[in-house]
Amino acid sequence: MAAVTRVAYLGPAGTFTEEAARRFDIPGAQYVPVDSPAAALSAVDAGEADYAVCAIENSIDGAVTTTMDALAATPSARIVGETELAIAFAVMTRPGQMLDDASRLATHPVAHQQVKRWAGEHLPRAEFIPASSNAAAAKMVADGAADVAVAPERAAALHGLEVHARGVADSGTARTRFVLVAKQPALPAPTGDDRTAVVFRTRNEPGALVRVLQEFAARGVDMTRIESRPTREEPNTYDFFVDLAGHADEEAVAGALEAGAAHTTRLRLLGTWPRAARGPQPQPSAWSSCSSSPK
Amino acid sequence: MAAVTRVAYLGPAGTFTEEAARRFDIPGAQYVPVDSPAAALSAVDAGEADYAVCAIENSIDGAVTTTMDALAATPSARIVGETELAIAFAVMTRPGQMLDDASRLATHPVAHQQVKRWAGEHLPRAEFIPASSNAAAAKMVADGAADVAVAPERAAALHGLEVHARGVADSGTARTRFVLVAKQPALPAPTGDDRTAVVFRTRNEPGALVRVLQEFAARGVDMTRIESRPTREEPNTYDFFVDLAGHADEEAVAGALEAGAAHTTRLRLLGTWPRAARGPQPQPSAWSSCSSSPK
Repeated sequence: MAAVTRVAYLGPAGTFTEEAARRFDIPGAQYVPVDSPAAALSAVDAGEADYAVCAIENSIDGAVTTTMDALAATPSARIVGETELAIAFAVMTRPGQMLDDASRLATHPVAHQQVKRWAGEHLPRAEFIPASSNAAAAKMVADGAADVAVAPERAAALHGLEVHARGVADSGTARTRFVLVAKQPALPAPTGDDRTAVVFRTRNEPGALVRVLQEFAARGVDMTRIESRPTREEPNTYDFFVDLAGHADEEAVAGALEAGAAHTTRLRLLGTWPRAARGPQPQPSAWSSCSSSPK
Repeated sequence: MAAVTRVAYLGPAGTFTEEAARRFDIPGAQYVPVDSPAAALSAVDAGEADYAVCAIENSIDGAVTTTMDALAATPSARIVGETELAIAFAVMTRPGQMLDDASRLATHPVAHQQVKRWAGEHLPRAEFIPASSNAAAAKMVADGAADVAVAPERAAALHGLEVHARGVADSGTARTRFVLVAKQPALPAPTGDDRTAVVFRTRNEPGALVRVLQEFAARGVDMTRIESRPTREEPNTYDFFVDLAGHADEEAVAGALEAGAAHTTRLRLLGTWPRAARGPQPQPSAWSSCSSSPK
């Protein structure tokens, strides 16, 4: 009997996070929808799931702060992989519904931001109804609570909806990066193109952050990302999330982390993993209409 | 006839942003609710308002990214002042409604995060209904679309509601900082305790950010905050928002900005202003119940 590997992701079924989770091609994977990034990491921490998949950064909206806060609050969590998705949506209705007659457009508010221009041109009379997720929007259409949903294409198949257009996105460059998280795993072997993430807190004194970053720069370690989040413990104090180019076992990175840690009050390795390949993905320069569209 | 000074803020009436706007004590102020931080800054840019007031940072949720993106997108906007509010809520119903019987709790999702524990103890049977703002939640209660709202106390008076508790907040330390923005004003005079904000973009090359920050540190200029936002123009490029201690006309700050700018592809002064006094504000260590409560 094949072993089952449980993979927790932000559900319901049909979300981009599910699509990202499937990209990791985990043998024997059973995909378990949960209702937040924190719940996904809790499931891994409690041993109820083997992996969690969480969105961590979007090229339009920036950091996914719920994931960062959950990572900071879950000491056992380690990032072991990443994948990137081009974010483009399918437009779907109940079979036979004409787009011209649609008066209620359901989608997640973040998705709505990314298709506002398209909707203004193609659904000028449709009122926006916020949904708790894109996949939930598709269900609202199936249930008759909305006329048209903007969602990942997979949601149409799940809910028996008709796709009118795919590859819909006002910006052709919107991408979301997702991380694969496990509980205190062995570090993956270096591949020659890796990323390392840490979270640290500095003393609340002038120059404290710069002293840490200088240790990275002095060793030629490139910082690919820095984000700050309030600690929620003391006013005007922050946790800094830093991504570095390189593997945590490489001499320069290991030395930078050791030297940098001396300038912090705490520093934790969030993980080290192979950088995502930037393979060819659908990057619509224009919106494609489907032959099955009634329009 | 006294001149009218138009102050745009994120409405509707009764929001914390309105409360913050009133704190600036602007003579002849007429407060104009708008529907987003971007709309407030656009009104100032177009000359339709003299000032905008926008939330910029919360001690629990971090940066208010909609305000930061709007500041970056409005070259004429300059921060000229700031104020901080302790964030604590009032709990309100239609007159005569008992909390025990309330089954629908309306508030903004961010506010809901900040009162979840209180609601779990005091309104265990109430289902959460997301509202577009706390003030809108109060209106929902007035209109019968919800039974109880969590909102600024002022919203109760605006909508004829009864206050059952005030100073409600799961964390006693939640504070939000608001900025006052004008269109290309003269820099306020130095007070000896000022803040300066800039936004800059670096070349996408190793060590670029550190070189800028080193120019600040080398002159003893303290960085009190750093945030990054995707540029939305090129993948993996960021605008960095940095707050510095000191006035932009002080020699150390001016020198740091000039030297730092040389390492950037663009750097813009977002403003220089007197630091907010941290005066006594209601900081409830426990929740206060009101004598007018029917409970």
